[in-house]
Amino acid sequence: MTRAELFHQIKKKNSYLCIGLDTDLTKIPEHLLSANDPVFEFNKQIIDVTHPYCVAYKPNIAFYEALGPKGWESLQKTLEYIPKDIFTIADAKRGDIGNTSALYAKAFFERMDFDAVTVAPYMGEDSVKPFFYKDKWVILLAHTSNPGSSDFQLVESVVTGRKLYEEVIRKSQHWGSTDQMMYVVGATQAEKMQSIRALAPDHFFLVPGVGAQGGDLEMVSVHGMNKQCGLLVNSARSIIYASRENDFARRAAEEAMKVKNRMEKLLSERL
Amino acid sequence: MTRAELFHQIKKKNSYLCIGLDTDLTKIPEHLLSANDPVFEFNKQIIDVTHPYCVAYKPNIAFYEALGPKGWESLQKTLEYIPKDIFTIADAKRGDIGNTSALYAKAFFERMDFDAVTVAPYMGEDSVKPFFYKDKWVILLAHTSNPGSSDFQLVESVVTGRKLYEEVIRKSQHWGSTDQMMYVVGATQAEKMQSIRALAPDHFFLVPGVGAQGGDLEMVSVHGMNKQCGLLVNSARSIIYASRENDFARRAAEEAMKVKNRMEKLLSERL
Repeated sequence: MTRAELFHQIKKKNSYLCIGLDTDLTKIPEHLLSANDPVFEFNKQIIDVTHPYCVAYKPNIAFYEALGPKGWESLQKTLEYIPKDIFTIADAKRGDIGNTSALYAKAFFERMDFDAVTVAPYMGEDSVKPFFYKDKWVILLAHTSNPGSSDFQLVESVVTGRKLYEEVIRKSQHWGSTDQMMYVVGATQAEKMQSIRALAPDHFFLVPGVGAQGGDLEMVSVHGMNKQCGLLVNSARSIIYASRENDFARRAAEEAMKVKNRMEKLLSERL
Repeated sequence: MTRAELFHQIKKKNSYLCIGLDTDLTKIPEHLLSANDPVFEFNKQIIDVTHPYCVAYKPNIAFYEALGPKGWESLQKTLEYIPKDIFTIADAKRGDIGNTSALYAKAFFERMDFDAVTVAPYMGEDSVKPFFYKDKWVILLAHTSNPGSSDFQLVESVVTGRKLYEEVIRKSQHWGSTDQMMYVVGATQAEKMQSIRALAPDHFFLVPGVGAQGGDLEMVSVHGMNKQCGLLVNSARSIIYASRENDFARRAAEEAMKVKNRMEKLLSERL
């Protein structure tokens, strides 16, 4: 999906919500466990009711990988079930030497047909570039939402005075364009959103950490939005696990709609 | 496998060779492609003839993941085929927020029974700690062997004066012991091996980049070995693809034995 198409979907749906499909057999409603493929059955029902309110789905690959070959089949079926006008992100945090990154890219972009993959920057340029495909996206980790994000991402360079996550954003902009690269910027870093936006004015940011991790949607949006919205805000647990009973799909839809309504207001104020 | 057991294997075999199972359908001998599971068949024949010369096997997970669910089955079969006295490394370069890293750990340590997983440090402490299991190992990326390793790993901290890879080694030593953590130090960084060894005198290092990537076994060993050897030197392509003909297994064994003989000499000079 191109940037123009993504922006078109955001305007059409008045939403920049990404729903995280962190599907966990220990958290889905019990009555689904007897299904032939409980993970896919859960995802299917979630997608059926939430797709009007979101522009992206983000399966967290660890949840599928932990189930072995069957998990990869559930993932593939889920991806094929997602409507084609919705952006799909493999949250895989991959990254290795060039010939190896090329195979991860093949897994997510050729064998499966994701629009984007999250990639870790530690190994540098040749670990990232193999993920550049036509109309596909690298979403590079910049400043993440977890407590450990301060361990190394805040190391300040003696040469440039910039923190590591700023170095990542600055340097990687020479590797690919705003039409093929986004950055992960955690919602828990909301107070830094303005300065991060200044470093990458035109890029889309994938913003995890709203909801269960405590990030603030309004603060992220006010400081992070650009002229093409430039934000995909992810929420997983607070939507997909809104209920563990028979009403789980309806409750997920309600939660997604609530977030979408807040996003509609934020978009109307700024675009 | 414990550190004592690993050191015992090194002394018994006079080898610290790790063989990378970067098994690629486009590079294995053509006559294997008609097998029911060509990837496993190749690995099986390689393991049959090389296991006397190595103490570890390191499947590169991307090569299996790129084949979809069937690839994961080949990986599982390969892992089960490896003799139990040989150390096994899932070269996966995973790392994510805590609950997600916990699922990657589950995939490689519970669903499969690897001894170790390679982990990327960018997301910090809570992304690494879920991989600590009894008698299992985290092999944390420190200074890698690829060209892009200079992009961020050499960023020098204004506070400590240390480079990022040095920060990673220093800080992560507080997270777990020398019995549960190793570091990836590329053979192409051989000239820095002495200073890196000084930072982590007792840790094992996994050293990729000897062979196809151009690193120097002798230099790595002279500067990197400690009293318990402390090195696992990986070689993949130069061994497993020594020939693409019917003699591929015999040629792989010859190459592995050559490396093992050089290691035996290096060990006898230093232990």
